[in-house]
Amino acid sequence: MSGSTFNTFFKITTWGESHGKALGVVIDGCPAGLPLSVEDIQVYLDRRKPGQSRLSTPRKEDDAVEILSGTFEGRTTGTPISLLVRNTSQRSGDYSEIASYYRPGHADYTFDRKYGFRDYRGGGRSSGRETIGRVAAGAVAAKLLKELGIGILTYTKAIGPVTADMGAFQKEAIASTPTCMPDYGASRKAEEYLAACMENRDSAGGVIECRINGVPAGLGEPVFEKLDANLAKAVMSIGAVKAFEIGDGCLVSTANGSANNDCFTAAADGTITKKTNHAGGILGGISDGSEIVLRAYVKPTPSIFTEQETVNTAGENIRIQIKGRHDPIIVPRAVVVVEAMAALTLADAMIANMSSRVSYLKDFYSRGQ
Amino acid sequence: MSGSTFNTFFKITTWGESHGKALGVVIDGCPAGLPLSVEDIQVYLDRRKPGQSRLSTPRKEDDAVEILSGTFEGRTTGTPISLLVRNTSQRSGDYSEIASYYRPGHADYTFDRKYGFRDYRGGGRSSGRETIGRVAAGAVAAKLLKELGIGILTYTKAIGPVTADMGAFQKEAIASTPTCMPDYGASRKAEEYLAACMENRDSAGGVIECRINGVPAGLGEPVFEKLDANLAKAVMSIGAVKAFEIGDGCLVSTANGSANNDCFTAAADGTITKKTNHAGGILGGISDGSEIVLRAYVKPTPSIFTEQETVNTAGENIRIQIKGRHDPIIVPRAVVVVEAMAALTLADAMIANMSSRVSYLKDFYSRGQ
Amino acid sequence: MSGSTFNTFFKITTWGESHGKALGVVIDGCPAGLPLSVEDIQVYLDRRKPGQSRLSTPRKEDDAVEILSGTFEGRTTGTPISLLVRNTSQRSGDYSEIASYYRPGHADYTFDRKYGFRDYRGGGRSSGRETIGRVAAGAVAAKLLKELGIGILTYTKAIGPVTADMGAFQKEAIASTPTCMPDYGASRKAEEYLAACMENRDSAGGVIECRINGVPAGLGEPVFEKLDANLAKAVMSIGAVKAFEIGDGCLVSTANGSANNDCFTAAADGTITKKTNHAGGILGGISDGSEIVLRAYVKPTPSIFTEQETVNTAGENIRIQIKGRHDPIIVPRAVVVVEAMAALTLADAMIANMSSRVSYLKDFYSRGQ
Amino acid sequence: MSGSTFNTFFKITTWGESHGKALGVVIDGCPAGLPLSVEDIQVYLDRRKPGQSRLSTPRKEDDAVEILSGTFEGRTTGTPISLLVRNTSQRSGDYSEIASYYRPGHADYTFDRKYGFRDYRGGGRSSGRETIGRVAAGAVAAKLLKELGIGILTYTKAIGPVTADMGAFQKEAIASTPTCMPDYGASRKAEEYLAACMENRDSAGGVIECRINGVPAGLGEPVFEKLDANLAKAVMSIGAVKAFEIGDGCLVSTANGSANNDCFTAAADGTITKKTNHAGGILGGISDGSEIVLRAYVKPTPSIFTEQETVNTAGENIRIQIKGRHDPIIVPRAVVVVEAMAALTLADAMIANMSSRVSYLKDFYSRGQ
Repeated sequence: MSGSTFNTFFKITTWGESHGKALGVVIDGCPAGLPLSVEDIQVYLDRRKPGQSRLSTPRKEDDAVEILSGTFEGRTTGTPISLLVRNTSQRSGDYSEIASYYRPGHADYTFDRKYGFRDYRGGGRSSGRETIGRVAAGAVAAKLLKELGIGILTYTKAIGPVTADMGAFQKEAIASTPTCMPDYGASRKAEEYLAACMENRDSAGGVIECRINGVPAGLGEPVFEKLDANLAKAVMSIGAVKAFEIGDGCLVSTANGSANNDCFTAAADGTITKKTNHAGGILGGISDGSEIVLRAYVKPTPSIFTEQETVNTAGENIRIQIKGRHDPIIVPRAVVVVEAMAALTLADAMIANMSSRVSYLKDFYSRGQ
Repeated sequence: MSGSTFNTFFKITTWGESHGKALGVVIDGCPAGLPLSVEDIQVYLDRRKPGQSRLSTPRKEDDAVEILSGTFEGRTTGTPISLLVRNTSQRSGDYSEIASYYRPGHADYTFDRKYGFRDYRGGGRSSGRETIGRVAAGAVAAKLLKELGIGILTYTKAIGPVTADMGAFQKEAIASTPTCMPDYGASRKAEEYLAACMENRDSAGGVIECRINGVPAGLGEPVFEKLDANLAKAVMSIGAVKAFEIGDGCLVSTANGSANNDCFTAAADGTITKKTNHAGGILGGISDGSEIVLRAYVKPTPSIFTEQETVNTAGENIRIQIKGRHDPIIVPRAVVVVEAMAALTLADAMIANMSSRVSYLKDFYSRGQ
Repeated sequence: MSGSTFNTFFKITTWGESHGKALGVVIDGCPAGLPLSVEDIQVYLDRRKPGQSRLSTPRKEDDAVEILSGTFEGRTTGTPISLLVRNTSQRSGDYSEIASYYRPGHADYTFDRKYGFRDYRGGGRSSGRETIGRVAAGAVAAKLLKELGIGILTYTKAIGPVTADMGAFQKEAIASTPTCMPDYGASRKAEEYLAACMENRDSAGGVIECRINGVPAGLGEPVFEKLDANLAKAVMSIGAVKAFEIGDGCLVSTANGSANNDCFTAAADGTITKKTNHAGGILGGISDGSEIVLRAYVKPTPSIFTEQETVNTAGENIRIQIKGRHDPIIVPRAVVVVEAMAALTLADAMIANMSSRVSYLKDFYSRGQ
Repeated sequence: MSGSTFNTFFKITTWGESHGKALGVVIDGCPAGLPLSVEDIQVYLDRRKPGQSRLSTPRKEDDAVEILSGTFEGRTTGTPISLLVRNTSQRSGDYSEIASYYRPGHADYTFDRKYGFRDYRGGGRSSGRETIGRVAAGAVAAKLLKELGIGILTYTKAIGPVTADMGAFQKEAIASTPTCMPDYGASRKAEEYLAACMENRDSAGGVIECRINGVPAGLGEPVFEKLDANLAKAVMSIGAVKAFEIGDGCLVSTANGSANNDCFTAAADGTITKKTNHAGGILGGISDGSEIVLRAYVKPTPSIFTEQETVNTAGENIRIQIKGRHDPIIVPRAVVVVEAMAALTLADAMIANMSSRVSYLKDFYSRGQ
């Protein structure tokens, strides 16, 4: 079966292994006429690059993207956009040991069971480098959304026990802290916490929050293609994400209806809004025009330097100590991945919604395109 | 666009409105030769029926299912299975008032914005009755899984502030308590809590947990069709679910890698298992052979009897008081819906996995089917 | 796997066996606001009914359709439209003999090989009655297309050696002749030919032509979702169709480029048309605004009353003589099936095309739906 | 919308323009463990290369393929296989003139109408070079099929008025004649015919036949995913194909049932075969175990050197004379494209069929993969 294609309309197919020749993505279904340059994409890829602070590995990964098809004279043509990133700094030698055993918390064992063998170099297809394709495609989706008035803001909400204070929210902190937290104070505390984790040869998890603004009401389809269901799949498909929330999320389970319901209110000009947004911008699976708020809970980096028990491919119980370069936390580099997946999901929903009424088709075709 | 189809192989399409003539589902892709009777399906539908305790409405809904196609001499034929449930006890008069305004917490507003109008009778397609198709199809999926050695156990983990004690777990309590909790003591407390909610003209939320046993290693596809991503979409597509967890879920964000990693261990016979199961049975999106554990966080019933502010379809701010019959909690009736969605997702993954190796195809076709 | 779903946007799923309880279709993705009545659908179903002339069987099949969901106050709601036709006149006794052997030209053998057994009553799912779902859904698609200015005309082009003379084309002949030929003279000759076939206990084939008018330029997607490729699949999926042509079809293989190319010409008002239409209205897989012309070549009814050799389910060579009621020709009843499949394909293409340019999305969302 | 993805399981997505940086394909869903080398693919690509005889253009196109992902130690890993062919010999200068007008028989006009503008260099995405992705993927599918005992033979059946004589069939002629005809005598006559066409500044069409052997009975799904319907779509999606036949094809329309039906017969060992094969190997949309025979009717090259009337992008009527290098016939280079599309379709059907019976799933999972 095939698991590397996402979306129905703004359809993407990613490919590539950690230590193969290259990684990339094909976007099939991007509407024609979108201005698109290498820079538009590179800026997103740079956000997931390692080596930007002491929280991430000292590897140098250029991850320079090339647009191979689908644009002409600076605009998308409506045909598939093929994006490619060559692997340049991967050293296979670093990883040869893991060929012989199953790292706890990794997909080594499950890939072997599924496929009979695996590309063990750096995790192969299950490596975090797989997200390069997602982020490159997400950059294109985000550009399309921006043209349509939709903006996405994604940041680290928490690292281990340290949670950003929304009262101290500063947007510029997201890009300027190594944690991607929007709160300088919390970021410093989180950095200390991570330093302690590293000292203990351990790792930490955290929470990523994503807020989407400018979404028109009406996106999402009833029943199975609910907007929140598709966002959940999008975000849960990112390796290391173990929980997904929309709006108040888990907290709804202990709330009462009177507190959880968002009352509608009409302004003098007839505009209808909600007085609160416990629902996170989606009602009955369809966007209600308010901000969409979602969260992803990310597990600690499974590659830790403490000794661990495991089994080798010969079926023997062994003790291992992982070497190499590994970030003590996945969260800061995953922020842009969550944003990319949200952008891709929204782009699809924007297209799907265009045919919800017969009158829309009549208007469209009567204009004589 | 179309949002009422789920799965790729064991594909289902549900249809029907709360107060239409009937509701149903077409299952396209169920393998041939599965023994299937009306009773197999009815027992699942009966689990979502109201009127079974004072926690649910006194409405009598027979929800008798009819198999219209796809079986012959008691077995599935491999062709589409059409299941139908006639609406018998719906009284449109009860609901006419809601045509004129947008109920907080409901999809009235978003349906109007998307489609220009809506079938307002009982919520139309956004009603909880929509789940009849899911549950009927889920019963067939569960029967298939049972033939393949997979069992699913689903129950209420928490209602409002009351959480079941896994130490006091008693399987038979799930079916015999009105809460579907596996802990008689917690169930009694939850009933008291709900009685208080009702007294306050309010409602409550809760948590549903689902455990899947007997799952072979290897299910799920890398990247976008990860087994947990598909389970997330399946469960988040159920109305009122606002958060989804796999394994330790949200807790991973505060755990360290050394505590979160599950070590592998090999038994004398070479069987490999994990010593713990923080991952909830899935690594890298692929089942690892241990129990799959997931949770759904369900919001309080939005139809409450306290006065609420909202807007009517004329765009005026009004105050409303919802009438009629409404459960103070969605959770107990949603337990079987979560189970159905999990079963459907697993059935699809079981089929998808059959072609993961060339050797599987060679074995299959060399046997000369 | 599942083979009973067609289209991506205007998605249909058919179900039902010849001698089961009922047959039907679920349409998921019909835009909201389309006026739709039982009569709109029944008039299409009546065109495929037998018993209307001596060319078809004397069976009385009411095939009365019921709309079970998806409409409210006479208009589609955007949610799935479930259509049901009860089987009323099927007598299982007529068909019990065919349980024991494989009829030449039928799917008895291949169903047994695929599924291990089959619903042998009247061919089960491989019966021509399977087309009831297609035609019912096609009626809804045709209604949508009509709202958008698209009309479809389908008729019998040839029966055995008798071909309709396009010079003698009379539209009203299509509905008023038992052959559905648009030429009264040819129809009479074809009837004589068929009478001779029946006398010989034999059957005949023929050609169906479909012409689609009012199609805007731009429908169809490059490469695999070419409009002609999708029309080919749609039409070739009808049982008994063995060849498909678009425009000049097979004749292009012996034509020269200078004769086959259609020159463009601009009218004084700037309208661009083609001087000829060898291409049948599609260039590079995309509609060019001229009439779409396609043809289906239909095999003779495989159920003939002459003695035939075959094999029984015990693997013995036997001679059989088919009994019962069988039309000497499939073509006249298949005319509306071809039309339905063409309408469904066009409806999907009309929706798909709406997102081909970024400017279309900007226009759409700036209007504030 | 997206039109560059084909198949459901052995899913391919092609990309690339005639004069862009590169063309390629991503194969997602190829089972793990298939031995695969660059040479396996290059040999197929070489069959579609021009410059191999005086019938094709003197351009030198290396079309050297690179495998970027999805293999490890010479075998497929089950993850996406990304194949890339750099464009090396395209000179944009050759084509700049066609930016200003619509070539008859080409997709210039329809692309402009659909997308608002087009990559006019060499036809962009509508160029014949688009088939590079199909052929590269088809080579992988063919390799998989070969492992499963399926072989495909494809050749030119006719060029203009010259038809190969199946009595004079010689397999080696297919590769050794410039026409790809399996009959040396006919090939010489066809070459003479084409020489005359070139002298007349004209072009010719022809017929491609494809025969598939070793196909097990049971492939294809009833109703819409019939094997012949999918083959029709596959082949009709190739630019320039205007008609598709299976088995006797168009001829069935004039045949009688007694002549068209294929009688079954059982050998002493119980093997069931058909005495004839008018059906072309498919009954009721499902393979019957005999040879699958299909034909594609290909139009003459639209780029001819005679003067033609057309319209320019300013909407003026003009006369044009196409320059550059253009083959007088498409057929010989399209032979391998038809073969590739057939192989891809079969690969998908082989996978889809594995889940047709519950007993297959039970067998599979009881073996403990």
